Amino acid sequence: MTQPLNPPARLLMGPGPINVDPRVLRAMATPLVGQFDPWMTDAMTDTMKLYRSVFHTDNEQTFLVDGTSRAGIEAALVSLLEPGDRVLVPVFGRFGGLLQEIASRCGAAVHLIETPWGTVFEPEAIETAIRVVRPKVVAIVHGDTSTTMCQPLAEVGKICRREGVLLYVDATASLGGNEFAVDDWCVDVATAGLQKCLGGPSGSAPITMSEAAVSVVQARRHVEAGIRASTDAATGTRIGSNYLDLAQIIDYWGPRRLNHHTEAATMLYAARECARILLAEGLDHAVARHRLHGEAMLAGLRGLGLTPYGDPRHRMNNVIGALIPSGIDGETVRAAMLDDFGIEIGTSFGPLHGVIWRIGVMGHNARRDAVLTTLAALEQVLRGCGAPVAGGSGVGAALEVYS
Amino acid sequence: MTQPLNPPARLLMGPGPINVDPRVLRAMATPLVGQFDPWMTDAMTDTMKLYRSVFHTDNEQTFLVDGTSRAGIEAALVSLLEPGDRVLVPVFGRFGGLLQEIASRCGAAVHLIETPWGTVFEPEAIETAIRVVRPKVVAIVHGDTSTTMCQPLAEVGKICRREGVLLYVDATASLGGNEFAVDDWCVDVATAGLQKCLGGPSGSAPITMSEAAVSVVQARRHVEAGIRASTDAATGTRIGSNYLDLAQIIDYWGPRRLNHHTEAATMLYAARECARILLAEGLDHAVARHRLHGEAMLAGLRGLGLTPYGDPRHRMNNVIGALIPSGIDGETVRAAMLDDFGIEIGTSFGPLHGVIWRIGVMGHNARRDAVLTTLAALEQVLRGCGAPVAGGSGVGAALEVYS
Repeated sequence: MTQPLNPPARLLMGPGPINVDPRVLRAMATPLVGQFDPWMTDAMTDTMKLYRSVFHTDNEQTFLVDGTSRAGIEAALVSLLEPGDRVLVPVFGRFGGLLQEIASRCGAAVHLIETPWGTVFEPEAIETAIRVVRPKVVAIVHGDTSTTMCQPLAEVGKICRREGVLLYVDATASLGGNEFAVDDWCVDVATAGLQKCLGGPSGSAPITMSEAAVSVVQARRHVEAGIRASTDAATGTRIGSNYLDLAQIIDYWGPRRLNHHTEAATMLYAARECARILLAEGLDHAVARHRLHGEAMLAGLRGLGLTPYGDPRHRMNNVIGALIPSGIDGETVRAAMLDDFGIEIGTSFGPLHGVIWRIGVMGHNARRDAVLTTLAALEQVLRGCGAPVAGGSGVGAALEVYS
Repeated sequence: MTQPLNPPARLLMGPGPINVDPRVLRAMATPLVGQFDPWMTDAMTDTMKLYRSVFHTDNEQTFLVDGTSRAGIEAALVSLLEPGDRVLVPVFGRFGGLLQEIASRCGAAVHLIETPWGTVFEPEAIETAIRVVRPKVVAIVHGDTSTTMCQPLAEVGKICRREGVLLYVDATASLGGNEFAVDDWCVDVATAGLQKCLGGPSGSAPITMSEAAVSVVQARRHVEAGIRASTDAATGTRIGSNYLDLAQIIDYWGPRRLNHHTEAATMLYAARECARILLAEGLDHAVARHRLHGEAMLAGLRGLGLTPYGDPRHRMNNVIGALIPSGIDGETVRAAMLDDFGIEIGTSFGPLHGVIWRIGVMGHNARRDAVLTTLAALEQVLRGCGAPVAGGSGVGAALEVYS
């Protein structure tokens, strides 16, 4: 007989998912109402409004895609890009590579530019590539957790707008913990997830779309048979996905409430509560909180003798990369952190697998006690692995940031 | 300031979603662990095992797609069907039309056969069409809630196996409340959702795949850049979606645990709890329970003077269609049920919109008190609309079924 769920206690200080805010967990236990119940459609409309604030935008088309953050990315790219369309993907880590992968499955002609992992792009490099490639879309990650780097976008957005190129941004890992301003930065489409700085679980992908992006998508609007009205003339090249067809999802969230999927109500409840909590704190305050605790963690890791990874000017607030010292096995340390202290930290992908640890300080876990507890445990584990660590050196350095 | 969620009390007796079992709601408030934590991967493996029992199959590849039931459908079709592949879709309601829509977006050559709404197919009709079309896949709905009809599949499965055709079945609305036997019926791929007879919320799509189906999908395996090993040679025509690529999702759920999406852990918790509850009750018992309460509802509706919709030999256990009497406005009745009694019932789509009501008796709501309360309220509402209804005629008829 299968037993009820009984997970071990964990402090999740990796690159996400993180411990869900208890208020979000409770919100997910809220009873359902019908998907076209007036209360439910009001809750959907409220959620659109909340995410306009989270994304710093006036975009009418701001809603949720029912899937993980990756579903949001694919919805954006498959709806914007027609087969043969040119897309420029500046890659500075694994998740830029994912944008390339997804865009290429949409049949787009993908043009890459790359910068070494641990660095970000100068806007001029992107501008030059735009002039060579003349893409329809530039697709880029904001904070790529694989390298812990955060790409500045204000200038990139202006360039794209000036050049008549749509800008898509994957803000999954950065939103809520780093400054992100859709309208001010001229971002056309941004997508995110709940499982990083928003303090929720994976499974819902907030998205926002500028009017220009909406126009591109609406020019490919094919309402599905069975719910199509005689006035719903099909137009343009049909989007290659039904589930991730943003034109149909817009009709579902809009006043017509055209049947598409059955809304994942529990994930909507989670997304709404994440935004409610974030906005009650204040977005600026939340970003400052992530910055403070990220700096404390960074100072603490240095105090433990570790070397931070990547360009210090472009660090994400919420994930810190630290080089694994020579002679120490990174996986042994991660296992001891988990087994002896119940604390999860991450490694990275590809060229950084086993080379850096990634330590997250985000969402509900962007807290002083979580930072200090992680540093105290890591001190013990490093010492146990033979690293010469002075007692209190990590916690002490973090406390100096706090004082 | 946005207030915490506070939905009105609702008894959801429409075609789904329905009230989530309170045990499932509580399971969703369970804290997260990391996605590659041994406890989490064990929970995933347990969930695969539970759904093998739910689907009546030994299929190793039985897991969850992270999205609503529609995501499961699209994952199956986009992974099985290459552009140009022939697919036969026998349509007996709106959701057959949806299979056509999705298959056609996959670039498949879709061949439809249709039977009037309210009826199902004779196996011979499907067999004849298979011989004419020679499709790679037959894609069909088991229980189509739009008509409340349940297509017998045991014979269809044997025909497909004999003819060398893969059989895909959308069991979203039927699984758990109607007999459904993947292995005995020779079903190659089946997908479902939680929001019907399984008593959970929308947002997770259980799927099972036969070895033949797995072979077809693996022949199109392209592990994405960034996590690809040198031994992961790409093969066949790449699947057009990354998010819904079953070959990659198999690698994520399998022993290699290749990073794909970040598992929607809360929805996994929900899916696991739905299956746990269902199997603790016993699948046969659950199907019998749906049949009993469905029959009581049907008798009660007849008692109220309503005429059941569709072929009585092929009714789903869990959704009853009843013709809206002439002179009664169906939407007025639905609104009064909701506003005065907090009870949701449904109408249908397309040619049946405003012509039938659909009353669900499923999952947690396949209960005597839910049936009797709905009938008692409907008696009042019908009388209020001027229908000549004898007091107690609906509840009385249902009680006779129970006695």
